[in-house]
Amino acid sequence: MAILSALGTEVFIPVAAAVGVAFAVAQWLLVARVKVNPAHAAAAAASGGSKNGGYGDYLIEEEEGLNDHNVVVKCHEIQTAISEGATSFLFTEYQYVGIFMSIFAVVIFLFLGSVEGFSTKSQPCTYSKDKYCKPALFNALFSTASFLLGAITSLVSGYLGMKIATFANARTTLEARKGVGKAFIIAFRSGAVMGFLLASSGLVVLYIAINVFKLYYGDDWEGLFESITGYGLGGSSMALFGRVGGGIYTKAADVGADLVGKVERNIPEDDPRNPAVIADNVGDNVGDIAGMGSDLFGSYAESSCAALVVASISSFGINHDFTGMCYPLLVSSVGIIVCLITTLFATDFFEIKAVKEIEPALKKQLIISTALMTVGIAIISWLALPAKFTIFNFGAQKEVTNWGLFFCVAIGLWAGLIIGFVTEYYTSNAYSPVQDVADSCRTGAATNVIFGLALGYKSVIIPIFAIAVSIYVSFSIAAMYGIAVAALGMLSTIATGLAIDAYGPISDNAGGIAEMAGMSHRIRERTDALDAAGNTTAAIGKGFAIGSAALVSLALFGAFVSRAGVKVVDVLSPKVFIGLIVGAMLPYWFSAMTMKSVGSAALKMVEEVRRQFNSIPGLMEGTGKPDYATCVKISTDASIKEMIPPGALVMLTPLIVGTLFGVETLSGVLAGALVSGVQIAISASNTGGAWDNAKKYIEAGASEHARTLGPKGSDCHKAAVIGDTIGDPLKDTSGPSLNILIKLMAVESLVFAPFFATHGGLLFKWF
Amino acid sequence: MAILSALGTEVFIPVAAAVGVAFAVAQWLLVARVKVNPAHAAAAAASGGSKNGGYGDYLIEEEEGLNDHNVVVKCHEIQTAISEGATSFLFTEYQYVGIFMSIFAVVIFLFLGSVEGFSTKSQPCTYSKDKYCKPALFNALFSTASFLLGAITSLVSGYLGMKIATFANARTTLEARKGVGKAFIIAFRSGAVMGFLLASSGLVVLYIAINVFKLYYGDDWEGLFESITGYGLGGSSMALFGRVGGGIYTKAADVGADLVGKVERNIPEDDPRNPAVIADNVGDNVGDIAGMGSDLFGSYAESSCAALVVASISSFGINHDFTGMCYPLLVSSVGIIVCLITTLFATDFFEIKAVKEIEPALKKQLIISTALMTVGIAIISWLALPAKFTIFNFGAQKEVTNWGLFFCVAIGLWAGLIIGFVTEYYTSNAYSPVQDVADSCRTGAATNVIFGLALGYKSVIIPIFAIAVSIYVSFSIAAMYGIAVAALGMLSTIATGLAIDAYGPISDNAGGIAEMAGMSHRIRERTDALDAAGNTTAAIGKGFAIGSAALVSLALFGAFVSRAGVKVVDVLSPKVFIGLIVGAMLPYWFSAMTMKSVGSAALKMVEEVRRQFNSIPGLMEGTGKPDYATCVKISTDASIKEMIPPGALVMLTPLIVGTLFGVETLSGVLAGALVSGVQIAISASNTGGAWDNAKKYIEAGASEHARTLGPKGSDCHKAAVIGDTIGDPLKDTSGPSLNILIKLMAVESLVFAPFFATHGGLLFKWF
Repeated sequence: MAILSALGTEVFIPVAAAVGVAFAVAQWLLVARVKVNPAHAAAAAASGGSKNGGYGDYLIEEEEGLNDHNVVVKCHEIQTAISEGATSFLFTEYQYVGIFMSIFAVVIFLFLGSVEGFSTKSQPCTYSKDKYCKPALFNALFSTASFLLGAITSLVSGYLGMKIATFANARTTLEARKGVGKAFIIAFRSGAVMGFLLASSGLVVLYIAINVFKLYYGDDWEGLFESITGYGLGGSSMALFGRVGGGIYTKAADVGADLVGKVERNIPEDDPRNPAVIADNVGDNVGDIAGMGSDLFGSYAESSCAALVVASISSFGINHDFTGMCYPLLVSSVGIIVCLITTLFATDFFEIKAVKEIEPALKKQLIISTALMTVGIAIISWLALPAKFTIFNFGAQKEVTNWGLFFCVAIGLWAGLIIGFVTEYYTSNAYSPVQDVADSCRTGAATNVIFGLALGYKSVIIPIFAIAVSIYVSFSIAAMYGIAVAALGMLSTIATGLAIDAYGPISDNAGGIAEMAGMSHRIRERTDALDAAGNTTAAIGKGFAIGSAALVSLALFGAFVSRAGVKVVDVLSPKVFIGLIVGAMLPYWFSAMTMKSVGSAALKMVEEVRRQFNSIPGLMEGTGKPDYATCVKISTDASIKEMIPPGALVMLTPLIVGTLFGVETLSGVLAGALVSGVQIAISASNTGGAWDNAKKYIEAGASEHARTLGPKGSDCHKAAVIGDTIGDPLKDTSGPSLNILIKLMAVESLVFAPFFATHGGLLFKWF
Repeated sequence: MAILSALGTEVFIPVAAAVGVAFAVAQWLLVARVKVNPAHAAAAAASGGSKNGGYGDYLIEEEEGLNDHNVVVKCHEIQTAISEGATSFLFTEYQYVGIFMSIFAVVIFLFLGSVEGFSTKSQPCTYSKDKYCKPALFNALFSTASFLLGAITSLVSGYLGMKIATFANARTTLEARKGVGKAFIIAFRSGAVMGFLLASSGLVVLYIAINVFKLYYGDDWEGLFESITGYGLGGSSMALFGRVGGGIYTKAADVGADLVGKVERNIPEDDPRNPAVIADNVGDNVGDIAGMGSDLFGSYAESSCAALVVASISSFGINHDFTGMCYPLLVSSVGIIVCLITTLFATDFFEIKAVKEIEPALKKQLIISTALMTVGIAIISWLALPAKFTIFNFGAQKEVTNWGLFFCVAIGLWAGLIIGFVTEYYTSNAYSPVQDVADSCRTGAATNVIFGLALGYKSVIIPIFAIAVSIYVSFSIAAMYGIAVAALGMLSTIATGLAIDAYGPISDNAGGIAEMAGMSHRIRERTDALDAAGNTTAAIGKGFAIGSAALVSLALFGAFVSRAGVKVVDVLSPKVFIGLIVGAMLPYWFSAMTMKSVGSAALKMVEEVRRQFNSIPGLMEGTGKPDYATCVKISTDASIKEMIPPGALVMLTPLIVGTLFGVETLSGVLAGALVSGVQIAISASNTGGAWDNAKKYIEAGASEHARTLGPKGSDCHKAAVIGDTIGDPLKDTSGPSLNILIKLMAVESLVFAPFFATHGGLLFKWF
């Protein structure tokens, strides 16, 4: 047996989670030391005084405007407006999603309950036919409960993330007065708050749920972990609506604001005269922050569930080895500790002094966390796993060693790093790909778009090879369990990943607030530099999310076919092949819906912004006040209305295919959607990131080459702005939603597998 | 046995082919009656005289410029320049491709010869172990020979197509003086010349090859038809280079010409002052005509080969039923006759009188040919097939009836019609999708691009369902043979398909010549109307090409796994899954290469065109003469250089994967590339077609709505031009090349299957 006792596991997991939460609170307190409350700021300005603490910081006079009370007041006002807009949108969104979730919860209960005709009698287990397991009706009940639990956790994660981001944005702006390093630390710390809160709460809720469910299930671990997969489904369903709704919101506002403001009226980005500017900044928080928080939480929940469900039918489950069973959770616990140490490298051990140090600092975060985590995995694999054990492999049991499993987790972790680096290479304006795209703007928007699309397509090559190698190696070692833990490995540094990911939109908002508060050009340059790095980190975050989604989906897919009793998924069978080709089409259908939604909403936004510019007297001169609320309403209405069809497509496809065509065709659909969706998702994210940074490259004019393309307002720059605008829905709406499509369909199939196996394939049965 | 005797088959096939050739010659003679030879024209103008015959036509004075001798002279000059440019490019291209093909022929011989260690002894057959088949060395020799034969036929097809198109373009322009109907007939007849020549030559060469090979093979039909698959490989290899090289050529010129001419200098399309204008018009002929001719010829050759190779191991082959064996060729023979009748509906039975009748006339061609062909297939299925026979189905024999097989061919045929109609709906500016895209230009190029991409994504949905249903039904009836004949069904009306497809670039060229010859605005409007319909038909042609490629590839894939002795292609096996995900990535890699190539070549073209405008005195005023030759050279050099890497990617992937990773992984790669590539190909073609027609919609201003967006030169129109330019490489380079990628990898795998089965999978053998 393993070195770590069951008791040790029972202690270690909650402690690690608690440490994570405590660290998040500590970071939050540090961020909170920057005061945006006008009363405090005024007092501080009046008191003068002591150098130590946040108050004294206001006396440093190395930068202009540091003592300017009005700036703080303005920043506070803008922050409040953004925060209120975001909160109001999320509440509206949650109401609609709540209705959908409630209906879906009923569907889950009815479908799963019907598997054995709502019988309350115990049934022979699926895998161990000689034992008796809990009745399907109770599995349905607990699956429904864990579905709701997952949805609520996801919802709270997204909401908290948004609150933190809107708490941090103005603080980052104010700190930017003192230098780029100070601003960086505030933005990064705020990201860390979100990262650690999410990672810890995801872990602890799942852990508690398992322990509570165990009170009923007792020895029936098969049923226990089958019900627990509802948690992953709930998390991802919520994430889908969060990503799609938030994505449409943010990009409708962004595209609308840019098209009139930057292109037609020639006013800067985030100019307070632009009526859509508040909606745009709200969008960053509801789309990039809340949406992404829900998304990564969903991936994390699903990969844990996929690993747990396979473990429950392997030797861990059969022998009731609690520590071995909890290995996935232990890996995540170690991840929290490792990320904690890693964060200190960015915030305490080193200090950013110049713009050019930002990207390397973020990159170092990735490298340090990966290196430390490798050691962490080795230790936990040695402590928590028996030297030899067996893993369920489509009917048979496969022998695996603890070092073999370490290797599976590690390869996922390092594949994540490779994906991160490749993404950085293709989306950072420090390297030739983005510079080539910027250069192609010389000949106009068309070549910019052609080069950008080509860049995105090219950027999939290495990540796909990295994923393929991870899959091959981890599967060879430990079958589908190996793939599930490889996904967990990629997500084990999620706290750091989320921190550097959330840092981006916070910096973007900070820039917006600086512009709106009328702060000096130098402040805006600093926030722009933070934001440029943020575009790259956002792309890296998306790369992680997509890479892990691919692995997670495959693991879920494996668990699904096992549970549904499918022995082979043969491409040569027409049932499977038609699933494969239709599945590969779904990401296109989904993208068509989301992109069209963004386009239509943006058109409405453009018309409203134009109307305001034409009808409100003195708006361009800055004497009239724009009507921000109408623009916020347009984005809200559009995203609520438009998120339903793509959401329904994803949620209903597995149900319809499974019920009418059966598990073989559904297997094909899942595989097809996976292999096709991952490519579009990566290319869309990277194309969008590259266009955004090509534009920033021209604007910043940091090199000889960049200056020949600029300045702002030149023909090249205008072409770059068009590319950036096209990239918006690609990188922030359809691209990142696709990984949810992939994994959500897989987890949903897994949850409904008992039903499909029993009642599925009606159409083929009839004919 | 079948009603049609072996002798009847031996007579019917060559007769049908001869009729096709005769019809093509007749059409050619009709086109040739329009004289562009200045000497003839002058004589005609001088003689005045008789109303009958071509000469007399010059006397009709209902249109301006009909008697203008100078116009004819100018048209002749331009036509000669285009024809010479195209011929010179094709010869250069063929030289380079020739070298590649020769090397590849050696590779085929060595790889296949090595299967049994270059032994000259007969070996037991692969499928009938009790019989003896010809030695592998001779199979290698005959495969190499049929590879070269396919390549040469494809090359000649492309070349002839180009010659016909450059013969017809100026004639269409001159006829446009008499009205849109006359011009339409000339363009359409020319397309028909190409369609019938290609369909007939493809059929007859294959038929002769089979009969010649039979002299050696005798009773060994397994070996005979295995060697014949080299014909398909040769055809598609050639098509790949033709499509990619021609696609880069035409779009580098087109994009380059548009970016400077239309966007910067505000001169019309095809203005003779634009130095890239000749290169652009040459491009239409080498890319759209020669490339597409080779492409569809390749599809036709491959689907015939796929069907034949499966038939050879089914009861037809085992019982040496020659008529049943030749069923695929008989279907194509009937297709030629049906298309001949169909063509008369467009050229003789009805006459086009107004612009709005063009599209319906072309659409009628599709409907009539499909309806007649359904009857034709029914008759030939009844005559040529025994009432019951068996088809090879992965090791077993499956019983099929003649009516079942009729149904397979028919479902492919009708799926093609559906794909054609859906494509028309999404790319014609008569319907709302393109009008919505045009409307989105109100808010600039960015929304135009977003809407266009969304349109392309959406347009894959129905075609994929149509393909999926065809696959399911035809496979259920007759296994992989069913899919192969479904593909043949889709391609059975290839002569009509090619005619309406070739009609597009011919009209495009005709418009260019009208502009360059300084003909009146009304003439240009007529050619533009022809061209707008041509964009739609080109998209339809691509839809057919892609749809049939999907079916063909699947049939080839099935033949490959049978030949390689693979029993199942299980997605759950990691060897297969990594193939699947990497295969799904290949179309992106390939597209990245081709799009970047077009972009880079266009940049060079733009610089050259700008240089000429800046340095040649009086160029803008029309007094200086542009240097067309340098632009032609830039396109030629770029396309020759840039076609090699994507070509090598496609040609080498099956070899490398098969040799190193073995047949299972290769199966995954083929399936992945198929299901992913077909989506990108359809969406890229339709997006490009929609943008082009959205622009034409604004330019034509035929409706109230269209006029609010125009006129030419308005902001909306500029945005539309940007979309059109982006669409160029999508619809004419990367999109249509992708279907070659899919089928070429499949046919190559099939040809090399004996080698992979014997020596493949080195990497897994080593580790």
